Amino acid sequence: MILRFFVKEANFFDLFEKQVQYAVDAASAFKEMMSRGLIDDAALRKIRDIEHAGDDATHMIFDQLNKTFITPFDREDIHALAKELDNVIDTINTIVSRMVIYKLTAGNKNMIEFSLVIEESVSAVARVIKGMRDMRNLSQVMDSCVEINRLENVGDSMRDRVFGELFDTEKDPITLIKWKEIYQEAETVLDICEDVTHVVETILVKQA
Amino acid sequence: MILRFFVKEANFFDLFEKQVQYAVDAASAFKEMMSRGLIDDAALRKIRDIEHAGDDATHMIFDQLNKTFITPFDREDIHALAKELDNVIDTINTIVSRMVIYKLTAGNKNMIEFSLVIEESVSAVARVIKGMRDMRNLSQVMDSCVEINRLENVGDSMRDRVFGELFDTEKDPITLIKWKEIYQEAETVLDICEDVTHVVETILVKQA
Amino acid sequence: MILRFFVKEANFFDLFEKQVQYAVDAASAFKEMMSRGLIDDAALRKIRDIEHAGDDATHMIFDQLNKTFITPFDREDIHALAKELDNVIDTINTIVSRMVIYKLTAGNKNMIEFSLVIEESVSAVARVIKGMRDMRNLSQVMDSCVEINRLENVGDSMRDRVFGELFDTEKDPITLIKWKEIYQEAETVLDICEDVTHVVETILVKQA
Repeated sequence: MILRFFVKEANFFDLFEKQVQYAVDAASAFKEMMSRGLIDDAALRKIRDIEHAGDDATHMIFDQLNKTFITPFDREDIHALAKELDNVIDTINTIVSRMVIYKLTAGNKNMIEFSLVIEESVSAVARVIKGMRDMRNLSQVMDSCVEINRLENVGDSMRDRVFGELFDTEKDPITLIKWKEIYQEAETVLDICEDVTHVVETILVKQA
Repeated sequence: MILRFFVKEANFFDLFEKQVQYAVDAASAFKEMMSRGLIDDAALRKIRDIEHAGDDATHMIFDQLNKTFITPFDREDIHALAKELDNVIDTINTIVSRMVIYKLTAGNKNMIEFSLVIEESVSAVARVIKGMRDMRNLSQVMDSCVEINRLENVGDSMRDRVFGELFDTEKDPITLIKWKEIYQEAETVLDICEDVTHVVETILVKQA
Repeated sequence: MILRFFVKEANFFDLFEKQVQYAVDAASAFKEMMSRGLIDDAALRKIRDIEHAGDDATHMIFDQLNKTFITPFDREDIHALAKELDNVIDTINTIVSRMVIYKLTAGNKNMIEFSLVIEESVSAVARVIKGMRDMRNLSQVMDSCVEINRLENVGDSMRDRVFGELFDTEKDPITLIKWKEIYQEAETVLDICEDVTHVVETILVKQA
């Protein structure tokens, strides 16, 4: 029990930076796959490896949370933050693995667009996480949160436009079912990035 | 920090009443659109304006929650309640905007039925929120909660019946995909209203 | 208020054991239906009765939670555990009732496989719940959690394989829509069992 007091707080910032780096790696691998217009076995393996490493990083945060008596911010906020970041990585992995199952492994301009917005948003999430270490970064952190919210709105409009196109032009129902799910999941990644900002805003205001 | 103590508790009741009024407005605009059998640009704009105003009301509650030291009930319950009420408005807005994208903008008797049940349920939610201000209203609040639960069961049966009809009669798969999603979302509004009652029951019992 | 102190803690363990028994009953009725390859009216009624009884057991836990001052573990963990167990029963019931609506009431070998894995996982959940009563069971509880996680991975692979098969072989889009939803829900039961282990792990580590 006593030991708990000796775990250094700063630890959590290190762990979150490690975790968010896997989200950045996943978003960047995803963008590369989409712009190459090809998901091959190597690409699939790469995204799965990132997902597994991300899983380990998440569990390390949960373990540390359960072992640590004094945390730099509220336990439920640490838990929620780790869960949302894990969710970002999981959802990117799900998109890729579903595209393989659906044999949608060739290029698609809408997915290129989504992958660019996702990469931008996840990069902003990484800046938020890195900025949280020092309250003097507050205004940059808030700027990145605003940017993530803006990108979620961009994603919403993209999803609406892309759904409109899909239902207007795709006459094969099974192909339509596949793309509808993939586009929806792509937009969901941006929703989850926005959820991260909600957790972060809660944390920051409590510290104020 | 000291300032926090001066924020009056009653504030939250005002903020929730404001927020729930947007839910009532959304449900009533939705019912009107469904019974007119037409979603035109003016209707679409109206529901989006309500959604934006609802968003602002929700964020005001979150801001206030973060600034207030003493709250009339547990912070997590205030947060959950604001989130569920926001969810009611968002889901109604999503239904309308998806109907426009899917070009399902003409009348449909099932949606008229759903919109009537949704309006009843959201009105009951508003009575619950207004009643919470004063514990002497307890039995009316509980009656409204029972009514919301009853309407959720009504919605479940409607969804099952309507799904049965849809899969029996709709031979065009793409049209079926569209309506399946719209009906499912309509029933979800009633689920969210029921989630509101769960939060409220938790709050009330803690006060007892 | 004073009365609250007299509610015995052990009560919660009894209530959870009662609730998890309904989950076991639901999983076992589900397996029987799937292996008989027939959902008839009697089967449908049986699963609905279990679902209603499960609902009552869940509400009893919520009521008790609200009435009890001292709880054997954190209130939010009790709430989360009861909710996840209820979710297991609900999702099994939804699968059966959706299969009836979709007229998918004849045998399907994939659903037999899913129902076997679901039954195994829910049995492991029951062992976890029963083991929590006494910290000396800790290692058996942890073993069952590991087993539930393993079965969730099994379910993931099954879902991916079954989706692959479905999209490769099912040429009727409406039939594909139906099975896609049913398989997805079957896999979701295993996800929810895994969510139970997350709650339990949180509880156990706090007690350590």
